[in-house]
Amino acid sequence: MYSSTARIFSAGIFYSLIIFTNQKYTPDWDSLDKRSLPSWYDESKIGIFIHWGVFSVPSFRSEWMWYSWKGDNPNPETVAFMEKNYPPDWTYADFAEQFRAEFFDPYEWADILEASGAKYVVLTSKHHEGFTLWPSKYSFNWNAMDVGPKRDLVGDLADAIRNRTNITFGLYHSLYEWFHPLFLEDKKNEFKTRYFPTMKTIPELYEIVEKYKPAVIWSDGDWDAQDTYWNSTGFLAWLYNESPVKDIVVVNDRWGSGIMCKHGDFYTCSDHYNPGHLVTHKWENCFTIDKNSWGFRRSAKFSDYISIEELLKELVITISTGGNVLINVGPTAYGKIAPIFEERLRQMGSWLKVNGEAIYHSVPWKYQNDTINSNVWYTASKDGQSVYACLLVWPNSTSEINLGAPVTSASTTVSLLGSSGGPLNWRSGGASGGIVIDVSSVKIYSLASDWTWVFKMQNIRSSKATVVDKEDYENY
Amino acid sequence: MYSSTARIFSAGIFYSLIIFTNQKYTPDWDSLDKRSLPSWYDESKIGIFIHWGVFSVPSFRSEWMWYSWKGDNPNPETVAFMEKNYPPDWTYADFAEQFRAEFFDPYEWADILEASGAKYVVLTSKHHEGFTLWPSKYSFNWNAMDVGPKRDLVGDLADAIRNRTNITFGLYHSLYEWFHPLFLEDKKNEFKTRYFPTMKTIPELYEIVEKYKPAVIWSDGDWDAQDTYWNSTGFLAWLYNESPVKDIVVVNDRWGSGIMCKHGDFYTCSDHYNPGHLVTHKWENCFTIDKNSWGFRRSAKFSDYISIEELLKELVITISTGGNVLINVGPTAYGKIAPIFEERLRQMGSWLKVNGEAIYHSVPWKYQNDTINSNVWYTASKDGQSVYACLLVWPNSTSEINLGAPVTSASTTVSLLGSSGGPLNWRSGGASGGIVIDVSSVKIYSLASDWTWVFKMQNIRSSKATVVDKEDYENY
Amino acid sequence: MYSSTARIFSAGIFYSLIIFTNQKYTPDWDSLDKRSLPSWYDESKIGIFIHWGVFSVPSFRSEWMWYSWKGDNPNPETVAFMEKNYPPDWTYADFAEQFRAEFFDPYEWADILEASGAKYVVLTSKHHEGFTLWPSKYSFNWNAMDVGPKRDLVGDLADAIRNRTNITFGLYHSLYEWFHPLFLEDKKNEFKTRYFPTMKTIPELYEIVEKYKPAVIWSDGDWDAQDTYWNSTGFLAWLYNESPVKDIVVVNDRWGSGIMCKHGDFYTCSDHYNPGHLVTHKWENCFTIDKNSWGFRRSAKFSDYISIEELLKELVITISTGGNVLINVGPTAYGKIAPIFEERLRQMGSWLKVNGEAIYHSVPWKYQNDTINSNVWYTASKDGQSVYACLLVWPNSTSEINLGAPVTSASTTVSLLGSSGGPLNWRSGGASGGIVIDVSSVKIYSLASDWTWVFKMQNIRSSKATVVDKEDYENY
Amino acid sequence: MYSSTARIFSAGIFYSLIIFTNQKYTPDWDSLDKRSLPSWYDESKIGIFIHWGVFSVPSFRSEWMWYSWKGDNPNPETVAFMEKNYPPDWTYADFAEQFRAEFFDPYEWADILEASGAKYVVLTSKHHEGFTLWPSKYSFNWNAMDVGPKRDLVGDLADAIRNRTNITFGLYHSLYEWFHPLFLEDKKNEFKTRYFPTMKTIPELYEIVEKYKPAVIWSDGDWDAQDTYWNSTGFLAWLYNESPVKDIVVVNDRWGSGIMCKHGDFYTCSDHYNPGHLVTHKWENCFTIDKNSWGFRRSAKFSDYISIEELLKELVITISTGGNVLINVGPTAYGKIAPIFEERLRQMGSWLKVNGEAIYHSVPWKYQNDTINSNVWYTASKDGQSVYACLLVWPNSTSEINLGAPVTSASTTVSLLGSSGGPLNWRSGGASGGIVIDVSSVKIYSLASDWTWVFKMQNIRSSKATVVDKEDYENY
Repeated sequence: MYSSTARIFSAGIFYSLIIFTNQKYTPDWDSLDKRSLPSWYDESKIGIFIHWGVFSVPSFRSEWMWYSWKGDNPNPETVAFMEKNYPPDWTYADFAEQFRAEFFDPYEWADILEASGAKYVVLTSKHHEGFTLWPSKYSFNWNAMDVGPKRDLVGDLADAIRNRTNITFGLYHSLYEWFHPLFLEDKKNEFKTRYFPTMKTIPELYEIVEKYKPAVIWSDGDWDAQDTYWNSTGFLAWLYNESPVKDIVVVNDRWGSGIMCKHGDFYTCSDHYNPGHLVTHKWENCFTIDKNSWGFRRSAKFSDYISIEELLKELVITISTGGNVLINVGPTAYGKIAPIFEERLRQMGSWLKVNGEAIYHSVPWKYQNDTINSNVWYTASKDGQSVYACLLVWPNSTSEINLGAPVTSASTTVSLLGSSGGPLNWRSGGASGGIVIDVSSVKIYSLASDWTWVFKMQNIRSSKATVVDKEDYENY
Repeated sequence: MYSSTARIFSAGIFYSLIIFTNQKYTPDWDSLDKRSLPSWYDESKIGIFIHWGVFSVPSFRSEWMWYSWKGDNPNPETVAFMEKNYPPDWTYADFAEQFRAEFFDPYEWADILEASGAKYVVLTSKHHEGFTLWPSKYSFNWNAMDVGPKRDLVGDLADAIRNRTNITFGLYHSLYEWFHPLFLEDKKNEFKTRYFPTMKTIPELYEIVEKYKPAVIWSDGDWDAQDTYWNSTGFLAWLYNESPVKDIVVVNDRWGSGIMCKHGDFYTCSDHYNPGHLVTHKWENCFTIDKNSWGFRRSAKFSDYISIEELLKELVITISTGGNVLINVGPTAYGKIAPIFEERLRQMGSWLKVNGEAIYHSVPWKYQNDTINSNVWYTASKDGQSVYACLLVWPNSTSEINLGAPVTSASTTVSLLGSSGGPLNWRSGGASGGIVIDVSSVKIYSLASDWTWVFKMQNIRSSKATVVDKEDYENY
Repeated sequence: MYSSTARIFSAGIFYSLIIFTNQKYTPDWDSLDKRSLPSWYDESKIGIFIHWGVFSVPSFRSEWMWYSWKGDNPNPETVAFMEKNYPPDWTYADFAEQFRAEFFDPYEWADILEASGAKYVVLTSKHHEGFTLWPSKYSFNWNAMDVGPKRDLVGDLADAIRNRTNITFGLYHSLYEWFHPLFLEDKKNEFKTRYFPTMKTIPELYEIVEKYKPAVIWSDGDWDAQDTYWNSTGFLAWLYNESPVKDIVVVNDRWGSGIMCKHGDFYTCSDHYNPGHLVTHKWENCFTIDKNSWGFRRSAKFSDYISIEELLKELVITISTGGNVLINVGPTAYGKIAPIFEERLRQMGSWLKVNGEAIYHSVPWKYQNDTINSNVWYTASKDGQSVYACLLVWPNSTSEINLGAPVTSASTTVSLLGSSGGPLNWRSGGASGGIVIDVSSVKIYSLASDWTWVFKMQNIRSSKATVVDKEDYENY
Repeated sequence: MYSSTARIFSAGIFYSLIIFTNQKYTPDWDSLDKRSLPSWYDESKIGIFIHWGVFSVPSFRSEWMWYSWKGDNPNPETVAFMEKNYPPDWTYADFAEQFRAEFFDPYEWADILEASGAKYVVLTSKHHEGFTLWPSKYSFNWNAMDVGPKRDLVGDLADAIRNRTNITFGLYHSLYEWFHPLFLEDKKNEFKTRYFPTMKTIPELYEIVEKYKPAVIWSDGDWDAQDTYWNSTGFLAWLYNESPVKDIVVVNDRWGSGIMCKHGDFYTCSDHYNPGHLVTHKWENCFTIDKNSWGFRRSAKFSDYISIEELLKELVITISTGGNVLINVGPTAYGKIAPIFEERLRQMGSWLKVNGEAIYHSVPWKYQNDTINSNVWYTASKDGQSVYACLLVWPNSTSEINLGAPVTSASTTVSLLGSSGGPLNWRSGGASGGIVIDVSSVKIYSLASDWTWVFKMQNIRSSKATVVDKEDYENY
């Protein structure tokens, strides 16, 4: 017995026998895992995540609004919100018309992103709702060209980013769609059928790669099924061997249940992953400025947004321990990055103007967190000449900063990035080594930035232990 | 070289080798054409066509509104209408939310259809716009469950028709979709690729057959491509051999360019096909009560609707010459059959109550149109005992009706259906035969109906030439 | 003590002392009642009533939809309809945006009205909902220019009617508004305050008279308060003495509680008032083609509309007994007179083309309803030369029509209007007088119309009793 | 000659002869100007202005959007925006339905306002658009209860403010309405008629005073006509003599052309009035956090919002020179104070927690701006014991602050508000007096606030010249 849907393919499908010859990678993880991470990614350190979609219209609760309304365990607040404000027969699809993006200026976004100091951007080309921000051939009338914005949001942003900035363009893509009937049918069939990936996901992935040439594919929504269901290794082999982005693309680790944190160019492991210690495979900490949501929330209060101090703490710890940060903003349905987001991004940018040398192109140092002052996290320059001590909290009752990790030499110098005051006095610490930095000469508001201060130390001993290349790094 | 879309199928498609063994029909026209027409269809004579869809929202110009707005040669009136009444970025998909069907009561429709005397109904399950009136797995968020009506219009009508009436349920289905991106891609590729039928049309056809078991598949939108592109013979072989409706289903002739009027259970040949002479293969005359549109038009005037006299003329000529009629109504976006349509249907029903024996189960007679009185068309009973002369216009200056075709005998009797007045006097015509019927005894308002009068003649000679079975009929 | 609202007028109101000198009418009923009815009104006999407004958008239940939803005894059906289809906080005002009238062509309406044979038209300039179909200075943002149609519906129709036809233009106007806060305050104050008429109703009435010069003011919504509250006599004195329509205007009788059926140019007495006997003051029978509603109802079925036979019966009885008919149609929110209404109007027009001489300019005869044949109603020509017997039902078992009222003379002649057959044979009735008309010579379909046949009788005795002028008429 | 509108009042208007006996104030400016300013207002110093209305829906350009679109000189940008995004017949009234305020929680607003340190709030009860945020009896279906929010926004906010905080509640009210037809008619009549104030403005003012008892009436939109047209003195006499707020209410100076900056409890003189020197009549500087608009603008960028440094500069200079500040926020159509506004308000609140004693209840000092350091502005305590030097910019190359205005004594002490470091060293200035304050002991981040530092000086000579009461103050 076979189902009628299976039968349809027998009726007349053409297919191609493709022989992968002379290809570098075969469609299995052993082979795919051998690929080296393209260097731009680690050197960039900072990306911006953008969650935008039909969920930006209700902008209620989070980008999971639909699921919280109609999913397995409806959230009573979401249900009440809908009952209070919409007719009983309202569906999620009805929101799409109100996603108008009438104020969307991709060049303005490009300017904000550039001002933030980020080096790459990842846009949700399609979230779990299934609405494609580009005019997909596989999502007729459920895409941003046919309904709502009436434009190719992916293409327009890609163009602006590339024309205006040096930022690298990447795309998020959800494998599953909460309520796609073909996905639900496959799921009901315990994923023994594969109508959904065959007719929807895989064609789409090829489409966005060929059309927009993203340097990041940030996959998501993989968890319900095996990588074999999604044909992840098949797609990745094509991506690495043949695609127009084969030399530069990086992908994350969400390609099927059990794959996360095990395979992929960089690991994400969980949302807001930030383990606090060095991780030996390149990883990414994605976190969001609105603490409670990735998509825009109209009901968010000021206290729901992280402060610039919190943001920089997250950033410094992540870079120190080998990760990249992917910092999320949720634009509005009318197409703007709300000022509170823009403020955080510009604050980060002003900080990076002063302190960027401790971040971009840096490598983890021998130590990550100082052994005495837990508010200090280290990075190092690739050549090992400089070690950067990033201080999260300025001491309030002393003018000395006492660090345990560095071992000084006669030629050691210490300066405060962004300070006009010249080198700082220091003395070596006690019997166990370390350094005591004297900051009494630092004047109020002689500082270029008010948050997270970076002390650059040169000629520190033991700094040859610095991680300088990926191989070493991964073998920590 | 192969395109990326082709490639997707290589990545992991499953397929089934299906061996048609012991099947009656093979997927070619020679075999398919051998199938006998299920008898219910010819005996039913009268069906109702229902054009309903998103086009019912603008309900402007016709159900081709989208094409007249955005197609190859935009109609200036449609363009002006949209410019005057909608924002510049409005798309056709935006109309869907307003297709609410809030007054749709399928049982009310069933009652109206039954009162019309029709014996089958054909609903547009999907028109060229691609919007499916049922929750198709292949049309996510572009179907009547996800947007607009929020219900399964096909299923709800099917249930009401079957629970309430003896009317046979059928479905119209458009093969092509004007603006589906996969169809447009195939077209651009001169139909050498088949992404669209594989991923959309064929799965859909299986879906509606299995789910709603329609006794009519009224295919349309076939003309741009060959039947091989659509895999029409493959589908029909399955339909005739294996489908749940294999014994009762009838299909029309629109299965690929060059097929119309050549293959299929019944021929349609053109819209409003009514050749005026006997046709030797079963055919259908579909015509619409709003002369200018199949879908509802808000701007239609009273004069745009055919009168009951025109409707009955169309009906009588069609039945006389071997066709069925499929009479179209276009319901409103809010789900009602507008009263003007209901009036025509009920008028037809009242006429059929009186004159139905000349129509249902009838067969064409030796003559179709009388040789003297061009306002008279003939049908005959299957057993050849009765010949019906249908008179379109009552004579206004004489009380005699002079017919050339019948040859009388001594036992010939003539009566007027619906008249309470008993048998009519008659005399035979002149040298060349014929009959002269005396209607002077027919009183004003002793008649049960005001339009198209039927004279039943029994014991007419030569009536053995009556077509009594399909084989003969087709061999005329 | 005085209320703050009263106080506002003390703060700076200007007013004018107006001295009515040399005026024909003083603002009291004794004086106003002395005015003669302008002759055009009685001679016109047939008007068309048009109910159009925001209620045409929900077009649910009736034009009283708002009241049935939010009034004193909410109708459960209306409440359920709103709950099912709209968000909980939806208000009636929210409907206004959807009153777009995008297909409204006042010249098309004018053509339909003219084809109907009606001689005047009465449009709802403002119904109880308070929405003004003209851009009233007293209804900012709750009028057809500011929201919804975005045009002056009253002015546009007035112009078309006057430019295209000879139809007389009139306006309906509701004194009260169900939910106007000033009306509700006055009501709470037991109408001892008069904020509402002072600031709303009266200014509005002056505005429409001066701007649109209607020849009919069809007042309504008066019943809750006395005529003194509405200042009806003050307004009417101005209307009759000074207004631009003082010589031609006619008004109905709804000018305060207790006034109806007692004062006014013509009486309405109730909706669908049709007493069936001669009434001695000019009156009007307003009735509606949709039996259940004056405003358009989307849910109306064919059986909810009166047939042409019912319409003509209503018309004939009304004219026979001294009334005018005001036949109502309810256009759609998109601005069309639906085809079913148009059909009835055109059917009436075709009947009046044949039988109009028995209607227009006619006067009641000595008898209204025949003494033997209850299906016959009489009218007479003003000069008394002709008496018209209007027959509602054609006899189905005889070819003689037996009437009791006429007294024949030797020179009496009888003909059937619209028949090409010439004078009919007749004989006088029995001892008690009367006439027996022989219709055996009338052929089927030699008739120009299928409904309500009019026999014109000349030289009938006693016809000098015919009512020929208003004074006599009222003294019956 | 008189117009018909004048006439309507003759028809039946009631009015009251009101004799003002034993009243303190007569309706003329000489009398009204004699009233003392209720003390709460001057002592409060800081208010929050809230611009909310239908303009919050397009939230394009500014709260003057309607005028910039349809007024005398349409702004091309606004026109283009409307053409691009709306149907041609869209009107401003159509926006109202989208003003839903679904996230409006007045208690949340109250909390934010309280956290800001403001002591009063002024809400736009009605802006020039005429839409009333309360259910006015004089604005049927053009108010927040009938359309849009479907609630009494004025009442709900008043309740929350009063239940939750000690903030004083006030209301903004526009006398004129750009497009009200009665206003336009009066204007056309060169304000010789007064239909608009009589039927709209004055009743409304009485309504809001009696219903919501605002302690501030912030009048606006007066400029086109004389105060006699508006009957301003009549209203104010009632307000001061009899109204429920007669003892506490304060009003501004916008009561007719030529009145501004001459009469009223406090002067506003212009938008963003901040003369930079002492003004001898109580005044108010209203300015807005979005530099370009008082209403919410969706298109505003981060750089369009004033920084906290700019805000505090504005505040300090204003208080120093005798004014109050009224700081504006523009909430969204969905009812939230956007986070960027909330951030500024909370920043101000945190600054006032530390420095409030220099602001609340303060009086201007002998000097406003220091004679040497132009970044310093002075206030003084009412008792003259303390003088506050507010420093806008921290010196970046010296640890001494050199002031010219204070004359020190032996007992002079100086401290930095919010500093934990105890009294500061100082020395007297040179020959011309003054003081030099040593800030070398102030440690980085021992400060409670990062912006505008306040030095409290006690026992400064000449401080008896401090303004301590209103009479003196006004006689400066």
